[in-house]
Amino acid sequence: MLHLHFKLFLTAKNFDVYANVNYLYRTLSSSNPIGSDERTPMPSYQAPVKDTLFILNDVLGYERYNNLSGFSDATPDIVEAILVEGSKLAEEVLLPLNQVGDQEGCVRHDDGTVTTPKGFKEAYNKYREGGWMGLSADPEYGGQGLPLVLHTAIGEYLGASNMALMMYPGLTQGAIAAIAEHGSDEQKAKWLPNMIEGSWTGTMNLTEPHCGTDLGLLRTKAVPHDDGSYKISGQKIFISAGEHDMSDNIIHLVIARIEGAPEGVNGISLFIVPKLSVNDDNSVAGPNGVSCGSIEEKMGIHGNATCVMNYDEATGFLIGEANKGLNAMFVMMNEARLGVGLQGLCQSEIAGQNAANYARERIQGRALTGAKEPEKKADPIIVHPDVRRTLMTIKSFNEASRALLLWTALNSDLKHRADSEEDREAADDVLGLMTPILKGVLTDRGFDNAVAAQQMYGGHGYIEEWGMSQFVRDARIAMIYEGANGIQALDLVGRKLGANGGRAVMAYFKEVGDFCEENRDDEKMAPYTKSLKKGLNDLQASTMWFMQNGMSNPDNAGAGSTDYMHLFGVVALGYMWARMAKVAQKKLGNGGDDADYLENKLVTARFFFERIMPETALRRQRIEVGSESTMALDAAAF
Amino acid sequence: MLHLHFKLFLTAKNFDVYANVNYLYRTLSSSNPIGSDERTPMPSYQAPVKDTLFILNDVLGYERYNNLSGFSDATPDIVEAILVEGSKLAEEVLLPLNQVGDQEGCVRHDDGTVTTPKGFKEAYNKYREGGWMGLSADPEYGGQGLPLVLHTAIGEYLGASNMALMMYPGLTQGAIAAIAEHGSDEQKAKWLPNMIEGSWTGTMNLTEPHCGTDLGLLRTKAVPHDDGSYKISGQKIFISAGEHDMSDNIIHLVIARIEGAPEGVNGISLFIVPKLSVNDDNSVAGPNGVSCGSIEEKMGIHGNATCVMNYDEATGFLIGEANKGLNAMFVMMNEARLGVGLQGLCQSEIAGQNAANYARERIQGRALTGAKEPEKKADPIIVHPDVRRTLMTIKSFNEASRALLLWTALNSDLKHRADSEEDREAADDVLGLMTPILKGVLTDRGFDNAVAAQQMYGGHGYIEEWGMSQFVRDARIAMIYEGANGIQALDLVGRKLGANGGRAVMAYFKEVGDFCEENRDDEKMAPYTKSLKKGLNDLQASTMWFMQNGMSNPDNAGAGSTDYMHLFGVVALGYMWARMAKVAQKKLGNGGDDADYLENKLVTARFFFERIMPETALRRQRIEVGSESTMALDAAAF
Repeated sequence: MLHLHFKLFLTAKNFDVYANVNYLYRTLSSSNPIGSDERTPMPSYQAPVKDTLFILNDVLGYERYNNLSGFSDATPDIVEAILVEGSKLAEEVLLPLNQVGDQEGCVRHDDGTVTTPKGFKEAYNKYREGGWMGLSADPEYGGQGLPLVLHTAIGEYLGASNMALMMYPGLTQGAIAAIAEHGSDEQKAKWLPNMIEGSWTGTMNLTEPHCGTDLGLLRTKAVPHDDGSYKISGQKIFISAGEHDMSDNIIHLVIARIEGAPEGVNGISLFIVPKLSVNDDNSVAGPNGVSCGSIEEKMGIHGNATCVMNYDEATGFLIGEANKGLNAMFVMMNEARLGVGLQGLCQSEIAGQNAANYARERIQGRALTGAKEPEKKADPIIVHPDVRRTLMTIKSFNEASRALLLWTALNSDLKHRADSEEDREAADDVLGLMTPILKGVLTDRGFDNAVAAQQMYGGHGYIEEWGMSQFVRDARIAMIYEGANGIQALDLVGRKLGANGGRAVMAYFKEVGDFCEENRDDEKMAPYTKSLKKGLNDLQASTMWFMQNGMSNPDNAGAGSTDYMHLFGVVALGYMWARMAKVAQKKLGNGGDDADYLENKLVTARFFFERIMPETALRRQRIEVGSESTMALDAAAF
Repeated sequence: MLHLHFKLFLTAKNFDVYANVNYLYRTLSSSNPIGSDERTPMPSYQAPVKDTLFILNDVLGYERYNNLSGFSDATPDIVEAILVEGSKLAEEVLLPLNQVGDQEGCVRHDDGTVTTPKGFKEAYNKYREGGWMGLSADPEYGGQGLPLVLHTAIGEYLGASNMALMMYPGLTQGAIAAIAEHGSDEQKAKWLPNMIEGSWTGTMNLTEPHCGTDLGLLRTKAVPHDDGSYKISGQKIFISAGEHDMSDNIIHLVIARIEGAPEGVNGISLFIVPKLSVNDDNSVAGPNGVSCGSIEEKMGIHGNATCVMNYDEATGFLIGEANKGLNAMFVMMNEARLGVGLQGLCQSEIAGQNAANYARERIQGRALTGAKEPEKKADPIIVHPDVRRTLMTIKSFNEASRALLLWTALNSDLKHRADSEEDREAADDVLGLMTPILKGVLTDRGFDNAVAAQQMYGGHGYIEEWGMSQFVRDARIAMIYEGANGIQALDLVGRKLGANGGRAVMAYFKEVGDFCEENRDDEKMAPYTKSLKKGLNDLQASTMWFMQNGMSNPDNAGAGSTDYMHLFGVVALGYMWARMAKVAQKKLGNGGDDADYLENKLVTARFFFERIMPETALRRQRIEVGSESTMALDAAAF
């Protein structure tokens, strides 16, 4: 731990330079109602450290796992210290660059090099020097070996404050995971240390112009070379962080078809293809036939370079077995999907925080129940129930999503670190089941929430200067990449439900059902468990309906898949709310000094169960309608 | 009519220059799956003339009104000819400039002048020369006097093909309406002819930096001058089309406070403030103290200049009575709100058309029920139920929204032109009731649909080149301006429900209830009327709940207002679907050559009643929860 502490301390010193830039405007203008002067406040962000700790310590009982590797190093004190350090990096280093990144974007030069927005490289260096890239990576290759759940908690802060910048390390994490799980020992020793240290970054190269979802159509080819390596040729598109100026090398993980491989997805192999060749001593040699052909003009995440990558007989190294590339790719992809689900929460959180600030400061109109601040010309708009409804909707989503993400990340830890095979299997089941839900539901709702938060600002929300548009535009991509959300719904319904005879979903239903049962006689829990039980019933009935009607006509499953994913998502978030309510009540019963915080949790839980959970009945009704009217028209009739 | 015909013919000749530019790319690339070559097709658009005619002729029975002024000139042949001419203007002149406008945007020069994107001025001239501005304006001032319903139908085509460009004439329409209804005869004679001819455009100047929704806070002041005019001074923001290079003069309609006027909304007056002074002979003289201080960087509608307008002792002319400006302003505002509701449909329609084209052409994966095009490497994505669900959701919204808009516009015509006071009053009731619903619901859903259509494209949807991002970014503003949608919901619940003892809403409930009753024994209508009746019940129960609980605690009304607006919207769209289904069945029973079209209507109606209408129960449930958990938290707790 000494190593980690030292690094964090070093990082903390560097913060001084950046400190408080972000809060300057807000403080300056706080005595005036927003808009009454010429200054536009920059968006602000405060990492929800207290909320993270409540979830880790009180809801998930993080300390229970202190017998497991990595967990034992992260005592509650250490966890809190690391969260606080992470929050500083987010608030003081990354946030001030978020709007800069959007406005400046990336620039590709004629020689194919790409410059990232001003300050990005320096901020990334701080991230790297702080040891954040390797926080939960294998100590054998230079990582800190701490739990993924901690990495995820901090990932929220960093992603909320600067989504585009954090995609550079984010994609590196996916590449690290794929090499760590499917690479040979030799490959791990060669590639991982520099990636975990952060001096090399990574990418995922899947999509081609004619193939996104359907990877079986891919054309990039790999020709075996005498020395065991391959020559990779082809074009990849939409490659996030494909080329940039922030690291010494870029390690592309590329799927391609080895000459003569079977057609379709059974002929896909995964390769390590470095931007620059690497000598035996790991020093960087010359170019490797990899070039960025262009970068895309996009709706958002302007600070991240989305590249067309051209491979011209680039030397690549096969990871795992030939033609079995899909398995290794899915390691990377599943890692990325959790990260994208997290982005949904991130944008919802920062947009929601700013909307709440604005609603507290912007004065306009009077409360329906009579003036609340009669000495002013108008009341702050937070007095209006429709504004409250919006803020509560966002808040009730964010807090449950945070719990759901951390619970899932904890299960990812348990999958790798639990003592018994049984525990590891159960954790893996949770992880597999929750991945499409987190990716699909959190990004759909996260985007909706960013839009709703933007709406609070009226016309100011539409003006780029205020920053709310950026949250919406950035959040939009999360619904698309790493498998569009319609694909997540199909993954859930078509793959995850039936896997191992439905073991994962049955175990989940039992867990939620048991929770409701155990709390049946607890009157204080009734407002939550009754509604949760109803939602669970709708979910179980819908699942049953798929069993009965999806086999005979798969279109019935397809037509209901998105509704099912969201139905599952609402129940999963509701289950987190019920658990949080239980803990809050217990702690309130014990007395203590956090009564306001805990009471607020109970109010927010009630709002969720009253307003959001009833959606399950609608989703179920749509599912049970089946596919007939959905599929009836000729394609030409649209 | 000779005048009109001549103008349209003249316009038609000019189309040759532009003809078919738009379809070129699509035709060129049609033999290849999208994305397999380097070309990106421009978004396409085909005006739904057939659908408009079905609604006008068959559903609304447009010919019934041929005894009314204006209607008698517009025989079915003429109506069709005008629609076709309008569709050409949209498809051939406006559409090719839509992406140009987004990419180029408006430029403000140091001297305060603003240049619109390349081609905008020429396209506007075609609009003007075609006589479109005055289509439904008073013939006494140069208008064609045709029904507003026709103007609205064409407005859809024009707005879908280029929203930003059409805002210049769109705002002029609002200004014309306000002067026509509240101006003196002298003012009408002075200002209207050039505005109706289109050589002068108009604007609405309401918002100030510190006041948007709450106009009572406004500070712009008006000082009386000896000659009866006023000197106007102050700053207005977010002024669409505030400054540009498309017309010879710009007639600003500005709200301001006359020195010494009462505080709040009872001290607001409305003024005509021309950009350039106008001589007695209507020739344009010099500057009038009106200048554009800056233009905003916005999320979308880049082709329209959103201006900060500075008034420095500009000469203005009072419209109507002093301190009664709000009434005149609402004429303009209500006109604008219908126009904004229309924009919601417009963006949903063009985005949906393009998504359907893409889904028919993009091949990726295989149908769940087995390969549909086995000779190809993959099936087009329109075979997938989740893609269908998206397209059907958009289609079922668009077709009902079109009917609802045209029905409301017809009621606006009847309000002004019907023979009996009773008919005029009933029509005015419909107009008042439907205005917030059209504005709020059509723009919320229109945006959602644009987002869903973008989603069909996967990563390509996020790239600006493909044009789908623009539809989303443009659609976003419609939820905000002319009264943010939360304000529409409050207008509906707080003003419209209770107006005249609930006369409008009771008449509407009776009309929908009677329709269900009349068709109760018609088995073929059962799939539609049963679902509609359920929705109506939820709407009536929610209305009753407001009566019982909104008086004692207004927060109960506020907390449910947005849900109520959407609940009402779904019922209103459902009522249109039920009427369309009735007509389709009748026409099918009569035989004829349009069976496919009519059968498709029935399928789409069924989809709406199966999938969308059930939302009413959820909305009702949320409303009946009340405001307690919504309002419980301290403002600081967010």
